[in-house]
Amino acid sequence: MATQGQVITCKAAVAWEPNKPLTIEDVQVAPPQANEVRIQILYTALCHTDAYTWSGKDPEGLFPCILGHEAAGIVESVGEGVTDVKPGDHVIPCYQAECGECKFCKSGKTNLCGKVRAATGVGVMMADRQSRFSINGKPIYHFMGTSTFSQYTVVHDVSVAKIQPDAPLDKVCLLGCGVPTGLGAVWNTAKVEPGSIVAIFGLGTVGLAVAEGAKTAGASRIIGIDIDNNKFDTAKSFGVTEFINPKDHDKPIQQVISDLTDGGVDYSFECIGNVSVMRSALECCHKGWGTSVIVGVAASGQEISTRPFQLVTGRVWKGTAFGGFKSRSQVPWLVEKYMKKEIKVDEYITHNLTLAEINNAFDLMHDGKCLRCVLAMHE
Amino acid sequence: MATQGQVITCKAAVAWEPNKPLTIEDVQVAPPQANEVRIQILYTALCHTDAYTWSGKDPEGLFPCILGHEAAGIVESVGEGVTDVKPGDHVIPCYQAECGECKFCKSGKTNLCGKVRAATGVGVMMADRQSRFSINGKPIYHFMGTSTFSQYTVVHDVSVAKIQPDAPLDKVCLLGCGVPTGLGAVWNTAKVEPGSIVAIFGLGTVGLAVAEGAKTAGASRIIGIDIDNNKFDTAKSFGVTEFINPKDHDKPIQQVISDLTDGGVDYSFECIGNVSVMRSALECCHKGWGTSVIVGVAASGQEISTRPFQLVTGRVWKGTAFGGFKSRSQVPWLVEKYMKKEIKVDEYITHNLTLAEINNAFDLMHDGKCLRCVLAMHE
Ligand SMILES: NC(=O)c1ccc[n+]([C@@H]2O[C@H](COP(=O)([O-])OP(=O)(O)OC[C@H]3O[C@@H](n4cnc5c(N)ncnc54)[C@H](O)[C@@H]3O)[C@@H](O)[C@H]2O)c1
Ligand SMILES: NC(=O)c1ccc[n+]([C@@H]2O[C@H](COP(=O)([O-])OP(=O)(O)OC[C@H]3O[C@@H](n4cnc5c(N)ncnc54)[C@H](O)[C@@H]3O)[C@@H](O)[C@H]2O)c1
Ligand SMILES: [Zn+2]
Ligand SMILES: [Zn+2]
Ligand SMILES: [Zn+2]
Ligand SMILES: [Zn+2]
Repeated sequence: MATQGQVITCKAAVAWEPNKPLTIEDVQVAPPQANEVRIQILYTALCHTDAYTWSGKDPEGLFPCILGHEAAGIVESVGEGVTDVKPGDHVIPCYQAECGECKFCKSGKTNLCGKVRAATGVGVMMADRQSRFSINGKPIYHFMGTSTFSQYTVVHDVSVAKIQPDAPLDKVCLLGCGVPTGLGAVWNTAKVEPGSIVAIFGLGTVGLAVAEGAKTAGASRIIGIDIDNNKFDTAKSFGVTEFINPKDHDKPIQQVISDLTDGGVDYSFECIGNVSVMRSALECCHKGWGTSVIVGVAASGQEISTRPFQLVTGRVWKGTAFGGFKSRSQVPWLVEKYMKKEIKVDEYITHNLTLAEINNAFDLMHDGKCLRCVLAMHE
Repeated sequence: MATQGQVITCKAAVAWEPNKPLTIEDVQVAPPQANEVRIQILYTALCHTDAYTWSGKDPEGLFPCILGHEAAGIVESVGEGVTDVKPGDHVIPCYQAECGECKFCKSGKTNLCGKVRAATGVGVMMADRQSRFSINGKPIYHFMGTSTFSQYTVVHDVSVAKIQPDAPLDKVCLLGCGVPTGLGAVWNTAKVEPGSIVAIFGLGTVGLAVAEGAKTAGASRIIGIDIDNNKFDTAKSFGVTEFINPKDHDKPIQQVISDLTDGGVDYSFECIGNVSVMRSALECCHKGWGTSVIVGVAASGQEISTRPFQLVTGRVWKGTAFGGFKSRSQVPWLVEKYMKKEIKVDEYITHNLTLAEINNAFDLMHDGKCLRCVLAMHE
């Protein structure tokens, strides 16, 4: 390709400082160094983690930066030593890397690869601890090792999942974060069995994906809890069988659920990021075996609490990141399942906009009116 | 037997009110009603739950009562419908019942039988919601469904484990609470695998039993944490390989342990009942998979807390009651293991006293000078 080895100048949405609208800039994207991959991003969705860092509440947020982590694209060029992908491959960037070699990857117990975290955690690339993004020489930080709000991005090779070329990139971009998180919370983290009673707190994209995961796992009752009554209609089509709005009850929601289920649910999932809901989610679990999984990301500094008696009497408190999926090995499998119509994806996309309209997309997210909004990056 | 069907008058230690020394009284013990068993208690040990209720800090504590729940004895007589034991059988009373029929027992997921809880929780027997203990007509409450600080006690048939007759009752009485709790926390609740790194907070009887459990499970390192340096020598013989006194360090103990173990332990156990130690025990676990089990019982009203990020990044928080052992089916198996010298019991017994000396036994416990003190009930 003509661009290979060259700096590419392209459009990207830059977050200059917390809470200020993103601006579309001409950004210089340096060529990939050893073990790096430059990707042409075709579609990206927005997720709450983008909004969280942008809001300034993330104490580890670095500015200026290029946000974005739920996307799909095509490899433009690769650096030295990259063997798993080549230019032209269709890929999904993975904020959760998978190197296959580190203590985490080799444990067989977790998807939390540690290989490039020291760099991605501080907005740079491993090779030289520098950013590949700049504007007239001024570096712009990477974000989550993905920075997909740019027409071109550079990622570590351990952070790229190669997918089948016939998958529609404007859809499967969602398999970069929210949908796998919900499905995996059920399949990998909780391991819900047939006949289980499940409670889901928060019926956004992640909560709905939990519902779909629970339905395919054979759950007998799937109780959806949301403060927005409008969420129930959609939720039904994802598998939710009963709906509770905590505002309709005087009793604590854990008591309401316990009464409805002869002592509590088998599995609960917190898909909001609210620490007091996390407590309710634990405490609505059945004594003896109920397991609660924290999926939502709480604001920095906030803490969960409960009486230890809740755990001594058999409840289990867990959490999940990217649903426990190993990114490079399992994202392609999720794409395959989507292509075989075994999992939903299209149904989560409520809005399609362009990169230029990215601030509108954030507004939609804040209004609670959308599930996923997908941006076309080259229109 | 001559006593069958009769009221028995015998000696018992009665707790008249919180924090006042127990007094040895002549107590009338009514005959067992349907599905009840009257047991001659030969040996009982003291455990912290006795001291906790006695202290008045247990909001569910009822006075006057007869405490005690770690004991062994011989069936004196049985009520109508009792088929699993008969007079003369050697037994261990079980504060954790096992009916085999309730939702909990049938779940296959927990040892927390619910059959008689409604009665044992309020100090009476199921059949007539009355106590079988009285002094000159004044009823004395039962405790934990066991009340073993009496020469004779009445328990529900679902709360009696029949054991082999050749087992020494002055030793196996310990298999009624602390030792199974520690072993089971490792074997049943955490399911520690060979090669694991384990941290144990608190090296009393329960912590030492955790150490023994971890050793037999093949743990590669067993780190004991206690604020009393004197605990280390004994702990070594139970399998503890390294000792840390938090008082010797300025850094938080979770940081000290994480540094010593390349990122944290695979399993941790809190065997103290201190909510801030419970947090340390969770947070010293390895990211991605570390599991922390709460064994200690905290004072009423106290809460545990942590940042949810600890769970989202893969740590698991659990608890255990009676080590997850099903009492009637598994206590006899533990006795058998002891008889085959596969588990220690004698080594936990540091003091032997008589019922008359029970207040001295509580003093020893409070001084932290003893592991288990066994009282001979008929000397
Ligand atoms: N652990 C991970 O790897 C991971 C990955 C992706 C997203 N997340 C997190 O998952 C969470 C959910 O993401 P999403 O995209 O589905 O968000 P969303 O905003 O679309 O959905 C949240 C839902 O919760 C409801 N809600 C808000 N407060 C509530 C309350 N007190 N009680 C009941 N319902 C309430 C809202 O009405 C909304 O329907 C976020 O915190 C996000 O950061 C975590
Ligand atoms: N979950 C259950 O089913 C169950 C059953 C039996 C006992 N328990 C509980 O287990 C706990 C332990 O019982 P035990 O008989 O072994 O008690 P113990 O008092 O003999 O042992 C506690 C140990 O903890 C140490 N300790 C105290 N504070 C500490 C601190 N801040 N840091 C480090 N070490 C500290 C003490 O020095 C002592 O060695 C109690 O809370 C008891 O109620 C629970
Ligand atoms: Zn996301
Ligand atoms: Zn790795
Ligand atoms: Zn006990
Ligand atoms: Zn039962």
